[in-house]
Amino acid sequence: MYPTLTESQRALQEGRTTSAELTDAALARAADPAGEGVRVYTQVYAEQARAAARASDTLRAAGLARSPIEGLPISIKDLFDVAGGTTLAGSVARRGAPAARRDAVVIERLRAAGAVLVGRTNMSEFAYSGLGLNPHYGTPKNPWDRGVGRIPGGSSSGAAVSVTDGMALAGIGSDTGGSVRIPSALCGLTGFKPSAQRVSMEGVLPLSVNLDSIGPLAASVADCALLDAILAGEDTAGLPQAARLRGLRLALPVTIALDGLDAHVKATFDAAVTRLVAAGVQIDEIEVPEFAQLGEINGKGGFTASEAWAWHRKLIASNGDAYDPRVRTRILRGKEMSAADFIDLLAARKRWIAGVSARVAGYDAILMPTVPVVAPEIKPLVESDELFGSTNLLILRNPTFINFLDGCSLSLPCHAPGTAPVGLMLSGLNGADRRVLEIGLAVEALFQSQR
Amino acid sequence: MYPTLTESQRALQEGRTTSAELTDAALARAADPAGEGVRVYTQVYAEQARAAARASDTLRAAGLARSPIEGLPISIKDLFDVAGGTTLAGSVARRGAPAARRDAVVIERLRAAGAVLVGRTNMSEFAYSGLGLNPHYGTPKNPWDRGVGRIPGGSSSGAAVSVTDGMALAGIGSDTGGSVRIPSALCGLTGFKPSAQRVSMEGVLPLSVNLDSIGPLAASVADCALLDAILAGEDTAGLPQAARLRGLRLALPVTIALDGLDAHVKATFDAAVTRLVAAGVQIDEIEVPEFAQLGEINGKGGFTASEAWAWHRKLIASNGDAYDPRVRTRILRGKEMSAADFIDLLAARKRWIAGVSARVAGYDAILMPTVPVVAPEIKPLVESDELFGSTNLLILRNPTFINFLDGCSLSLPCHAPGTAPVGLMLSGLNGADRRVLEIGLAVEALFQSQR
Repeated sequence: MYPTLTESQRALQEGRTTSAELTDAALARAADPAGEGVRVYTQVYAEQARAAARASDTLRAAGLARSPIEGLPISIKDLFDVAGGTTLAGSVARRGAPAARRDAVVIERLRAAGAVLVGRTNMSEFAYSGLGLNPHYGTPKNPWDRGVGRIPGGSSSGAAVSVTDGMALAGIGSDTGGSVRIPSALCGLTGFKPSAQRVSMEGVLPLSVNLDSIGPLAASVADCALLDAILAGEDTAGLPQAARLRGLRLALPVTIALDGLDAHVKATFDAAVTRLVAAGVQIDEIEVPEFAQLGEINGKGGFTASEAWAWHRKLIASNGDAYDPRVRTRILRGKEMSAADFIDLLAARKRWIAGVSARVAGYDAILMPTVPVVAPEIKPLVESDELFGSTNLLILRNPTFINFLDGCSLSLPCHAPGTAPVGLMLSGLNGADRRVLEIGLAVEALFQSQR
Repeated sequence: MYPTLTESQRALQEGRTTSAELTDAALARAADPAGEGVRVYTQVYAEQARAAARASDTLRAAGLARSPIEGLPISIKDLFDVAGGTTLAGSVARRGAPAARRDAVVIERLRAAGAVLVGRTNMSEFAYSGLGLNPHYGTPKNPWDRGVGRIPGGSSSGAAVSVTDGMALAGIGSDTGGSVRIPSALCGLTGFKPSAQRVSMEGVLPLSVNLDSIGPLAASVADCALLDAILAGEDTAGLPQAARLRGLRLALPVTIALDGLDAHVKATFDAAVTRLVAAGVQIDEIEVPEFAQLGEINGKGGFTASEAWAWHRKLIASNGDAYDPRVRTRILRGKEMSAADFIDLLAARKRWIAGVSARVAGYDAILMPTVPVVAPEIKPLVESDELFGSTNLLILRNPTFINFLDGCSLSLPCHAPGTAPVGLMLSGLNGADRRVLEIGLAVEALFQSQR
């Protein structure tokens, strides 16, 4: 549906295009006043991107391509440090804060691999919501039903729309409770949230140290696997290959995870399950009572509120009025948490992970719909704090299980072309990243073969 | 000086004694009304020990010895769960609490190795002090200068005196800030604190989840290495062998760690350094400014107060009056700590470990006196809260550096026979356990060859 990194790389290799051309096209889309560019990018690196593209074309001509993403335009979420600039993370509260002295590790790795960094993408302020609304920079509209104006999902909102609207071939986001997978699901992209420890957080503005992870939003599972390897500092020579579908065993949690599906998501997800079963995948519905306990475990705000408060308390003291009130209010919940509550939370998480792990032992992956509803309209969410709060919880719900599990998770599209995007989420325990990607490649191939 | 496990095992193998005889002798010392037994053991397993000893002799006679500690009487600190009994941890506050349903993992491993468990040893209440005073069960007297009545060191106080007084051949203790190494140093024993993750804490009453570790107090480095392997669930076939002293490089921190040495400790430690240098060891004095920062990092009570409060808050609410007021007061400091403070502490520890690690990179081990003073008298410490507080901090000081470092550490005697015991502490970074033991074996052999 969208051009993949692999296809674009082949076009470069075969001389059908150049990095300069691809970059110019992306910049043109970003600069189009009729498009979403102004809401997708908080900063466009137009000159630097063109220079990087020319350098890439020069290296390629000399046989010096650096990686399979050589010369490809890629966007980065506004929370990665780029030397010389201030990391705002979708806020205005950090305007005037010191510039980063060096690139984040992931930025270094992308540059070293030859990526052309188009610009910094808009996001939920400080990554603290799953919807993608941003009162400071505007909310990029979902590519589906654009006339109506639906949310892109968040917090990596600009990352998703940068790809759907041709302003980049892939976006790098972060995922603390679904922030890579939700916009991928709602916008019809593929998003991968790796096991948290896989990708360095050095130089990344944190939301929750215990839950944060860095991952790509892209046009295919293979693109996600490729970018994940680069972000993790791994060799791209041994990327995952599609698993064999027949005989795979997937666990489908029926506790909470299937509650409140809207008609389109339900029909689309059920159809996906039917197709997988027809392809020889064994899908077992299982109870996961731990999913029902998570609300209580996080009753005092969980890791996100307490760890965000630890980071933000100085900035809120000095410049709290500049925050999105919906973000500030939720960060402030963390102020009330005691060290003992936090220590209990750490222990509860350990037990919770052990409990869930025991239930999914022996399965190749966990299967869920990424988001239970199609992208809702922006306007009512802007107008109502209450609707914002309940919708945010609903949309974060399933992805968050996997962050709390310290697992890895892939969202890939499972909807029929022309209908509202729906994401199917394949997840694994900590460290099962490669397996989840292998299964995702096979599932994607099945779905595409049936289009 | 004290009989080692190795020697006793040889005596058993050669038929010069039996487990029943060794056990009877230990029980007799524990029961001697003129001795320290009543203050060393909070519970003696007389019958079970005799039964275990008889069973061991039977197995040995049939060629079925289970390990190199088969049939040897060993004491366990009062904080390990033993199925059927209530773990009191040197308190009276937990009297009436439910009995443990199963043995702690370390107790299972000791039993499986054929150890004869003599009884549960007295300790600082809930392990929360380095001196070994206990107002409920009395304070076992240091074997040195017994007429005067000096502290044994803590918190594994009874563990140490159980060994010095022949009530066990070794004791199993725990070490959160020096609780294995301090009583070892003050009583003339060898104590090993492994890297925290080496030995399972399952079934152990915690003090600080981030700092707790389990280790042996024994008569030699080899005994410590043997027990450490058993506690860690490792094969005893490949135990550490003495390193070659010549060419070893040891780092001797001069920041804080050498402050306030009394004349005997200074003379004894200096003499030990001189002997090591004469044996070809290179000892470099290094600055470790991080050591001077630890007081401020832990200014709000650190991990111990906050994690103790998280565990104890229910019990203090229901039965706080039964606590040693000196323990309760310090646990209550943890009540004031916020989640954000705790999160900052975790981050500060990470940076601190990185800082110290960089300074000792390239050294084989870190060398310090375990405790800067000889064992002080019990009476003034009982009488003055202020003296108790300052002495406790002084005595915990050096060992605590290594717990905060998440490292491993061995204390071995370096004093001349007949003088007050002084411990020399050899420490390494996380996971350097084997290397530290190998160096300890060599240092011990050098010191013994010069007696």
